[in-house]
Amino acid sequence: MASTQLIFTDRAAHRAWLARQAKLPAGFRVGTARFEFVPREAPKPAKMTLTLIALDRPTPDFAAMFTRNALPGAPIIVGRQRLDAPTLGAIIVNNKISNVCAPGGVATAERICRDAGGLLGLAATQVLPSSTGVIGWSLPEAEIVLALPQAVAALAGDSILPAAEGIVTTDLYPKIRRADVGAGSIVGIAKGAGMIEPNLATMLVYLLTDLAVPRVELRAALQRAVETSFNTISIDSDTSTSDTVALLSSGRVPCDDLAAFERGLTQVCRDLAEDVVRNGEGVRHVIRVTVRDAATPELARALGKAIVNAPLFKCAVAGNDPNVGRLIQAIGKHVGAHAPTTDLSRLRLRLGGVEIFADGVFQLNPEKELALVAHLRAAELYASAPPVAGVFTAAVDFPPHERCVEIEVSPGNGHAAATVLGGDLTHEYVSENADYRS
Amino acid sequence: MASTQLIFTDRAAHRAWLARQAKLPAGFRVGTARFEFVPREAPKPAKMTLTLIALDRPTPDFAAMFTRNALPGAPIIVGRQRLDAPTLGAIIVNNKISNVCAPGGVATAERICRDAGGLLGLAATQVLPSSTGVIGWSLPEAEIVLALPQAVAALAGDSILPAAEGIVTTDLYPKIRRADVGAGSIVGIAKGAGMIEPNLATMLVYLLTDLAVPRVELRAALQRAVETSFNTISIDSDTSTSDTVALLSSGRVPCDDLAAFERGLTQVCRDLAEDVVRNGEGVRHVIRVTVRDAATPELARALGKAIVNAPLFKCAVAGNDPNVGRLIQAIGKHVGAHAPTTDLSRLRLRLGGVEIFADGVFQLNPEKELALVAHLRAAELYASAPPVAGVFTAAVDFPPHERCVEIEVSPGNGHAAATVLGGDLTHEYVSENADYRS
Repeated sequence: MASTQLIFTDRAAHRAWLARQAKLPAGFRVGTARFEFVPREAPKPAKMTLTLIALDRPTPDFAAMFTRNALPGAPIIVGRQRLDAPTLGAIIVNNKISNVCAPGGVATAERICRDAGGLLGLAATQVLPSSTGVIGWSLPEAEIVLALPQAVAALAGDSILPAAEGIVTTDLYPKIRRADVGAGSIVGIAKGAGMIEPNLATMLVYLLTDLAVPRVELRAALQRAVETSFNTISIDSDTSTSDTVALLSSGRVPCDDLAAFERGLTQVCRDLAEDVVRNGEGVRHVIRVTVRDAATPELARALGKAIVNAPLFKCAVAGNDPNVGRLIQAIGKHVGAHAPTTDLSRLRLRLGGVEIFADGVFQLNPEKELALVAHLRAAELYASAPPVAGVFTAAVDFPPHERCVEIEVSPGNGHAAATVLGGDLTHEYVSENADYRS
Repeated sequence: MASTQLIFTDRAAHRAWLARQAKLPAGFRVGTARFEFVPREAPKPAKMTLTLIALDRPTPDFAAMFTRNALPGAPIIVGRQRLDAPTLGAIIVNNKISNVCAPGGVATAERICRDAGGLLGLAATQVLPSSTGVIGWSLPEAEIVLALPQAVAALAGDSILPAAEGIVTTDLYPKIRRADVGAGSIVGIAKGAGMIEPNLATMLVYLLTDLAVPRVELRAALQRAVETSFNTISIDSDTSTSDTVALLSSGRVPCDDLAAFERGLTQVCRDLAEDVVRNGEGVRHVIRVTVRDAATPELARALGKAIVNAPLFKCAVAGNDPNVGRLIQAIGKHVGAHAPTTDLSRLRLRLGGVEIFADGVFQLNPEKELALVAHLRAAELYASAPPVAGVFTAAVDFPPHERCVEIEVSPGNGHAAATVLGGDLTHEYVSENADYRS
């Protein structure tokens, strides 16, 4: 799925690569501000980063897609209204608290837009708000408003890295991808890392381009790009209340090849989606399921999702245990519950290129078992380190390689295909999420 | 949900209680045999227990329900045929290997039925086969056939306990429940403990009664009882390829009150279902979601399932962390994806009796937070013990109490209700399932 197969030997090598990805397209600046505050609901000091992405001139050419969760955050409610605004000039993002179903949440989001806009010479409706973090808590409105001038003062046009770092929560490292298209570029950043089975878009993703693509074409291209990137991944089957993918064009560079733009955009989205999975909470193996010869595209994707969302299979992968019976369980569960008339008599399965299922039965032997274990071990991102005070912590702060656990599924009942990415289920995931707020 | 609220101070107290539950209804005997063998697919010695449940006389009055997984095990394929047989005389169960999609699996199951039947004076079609354990491996047919005489020799009519112990895999303790109805009784045993979101029935459950209930009524009663018991639980959202619930009547005691029989049957099923959750792999908290005032029964149950299957919420419960934002995520994810026209404006939520959501926003404060933490702690079955050589192991071998994390959900858009049971997501679950086969 990735355009590249990157291998990083250490954090410094990854940072150097990030710095090369990070060059901002013309017409954009980013700035951040970090401050401490005390949440209203659980009085214990916490830290928040504000990230401001500003256009030099407001643009009519912007697109955004939001979560389909039926109880969305206030920034999603406000963001949907912004889609109708004539122009957009900035995005203001905070981490730590997601402003979902909090009393007065929409008014707070609008107040922040108004004050940020005031500092930038924009109307509130020209600012898109975005929040991620704990659901249910209230934003510290006063503290955010106080910190806004610092973020504005920090605005700089060279690198998107401060924004990529500013929006993270439990991510282990910043995520930046770029595509150079003609004289222009598309640069994207993403924030993971849990509550991720996007139903439309995922988490927070901001895509900036200096290529002049009109609003209608921009929105159509984003929709198609998201469909085959963020909508094909799942960290943990949970769909966030705050998923947002926004795409802004500064229009500084003429775009004479819309198809090339869309190819670049799609590649950036797919690369970022894979980055989000690779840096998913507790993910030690990325699982890539390639489904071919399926009756419909929906069945193809659903089978992939069923596999990457099956807890028992995910645990087996975490343990480098080729418990392929759990693959069959996942496929059979989905078909039995949602597509019971599907013919599975021609089902074929491969893991790491090794045939494991055909003609209605498993094709296993001790030699294959060894090959499967070797494949799983090679795809491991890092070995689990012993827990400290009962807490497992990820042992890397950079992505050491881009190998995946490769699963090929062929139902043999049609010609549709899909690729789905997910991760394993590890002690690191449980540690991250049993202690996340404390 | 349970008819009782049991508290056991230690394993001995639990065993004494089990012994009282275990008295077999008239007309049944059980026997087991245990042996070592080497699986064909991964040559490393393993142990298997055969469990034989035999009727003194074959009965026409039996019922069975099987998994809806579309890739079911050979015993399920054979079992569905047995439903048409005039009479049934025995059930033969093995653990360790589930005989699913293994080459020649159906022939092996039939061979075992034939040999077991031969020893008992029954035809193969009068024996119901059942298997649980690793999916994809082949049953050790020769070793099983050799062990059958030992199981037959062990047949005894006093206690079902040997069978309850014989069918387990990763269960921490045997599960037996009974209902005394008039002069007769219904006694059931269940085997958990992972790959459990039954879609019809669950895992292996055997229900024996001496009450004379004709086949048609028996099957109808079982279907209704399963619907509100095993079909309302989920350990990990995985649906086994081997789920089986079988009910046999020896007909020894006249049944003059069918309604009382069905009440007893339903209670035994609900008690066993709760036992299965309480002893689910890695479960340290049982989560009970009571949904009321929902538009439809389907929505009510789906909301309950969405909550008990949400990994992030399950992790929060494991950590005694009242991260109620993750509850909202689960509800909003389900509604957004599957019932987007549902009106959630009157949604109300309670956790441990404390109101946490109403009027479209959270109702939280630091005092409530403390009450929620106390509720979660009180429902914990045992404290997590530090891992030994990286492996977390459940610290109990009996159920210390029957308290649950109590969640009440009121969508406020109708009059339907449902109760769903699930468990938390713990390090013990990951340890169990990352190392299960090794």
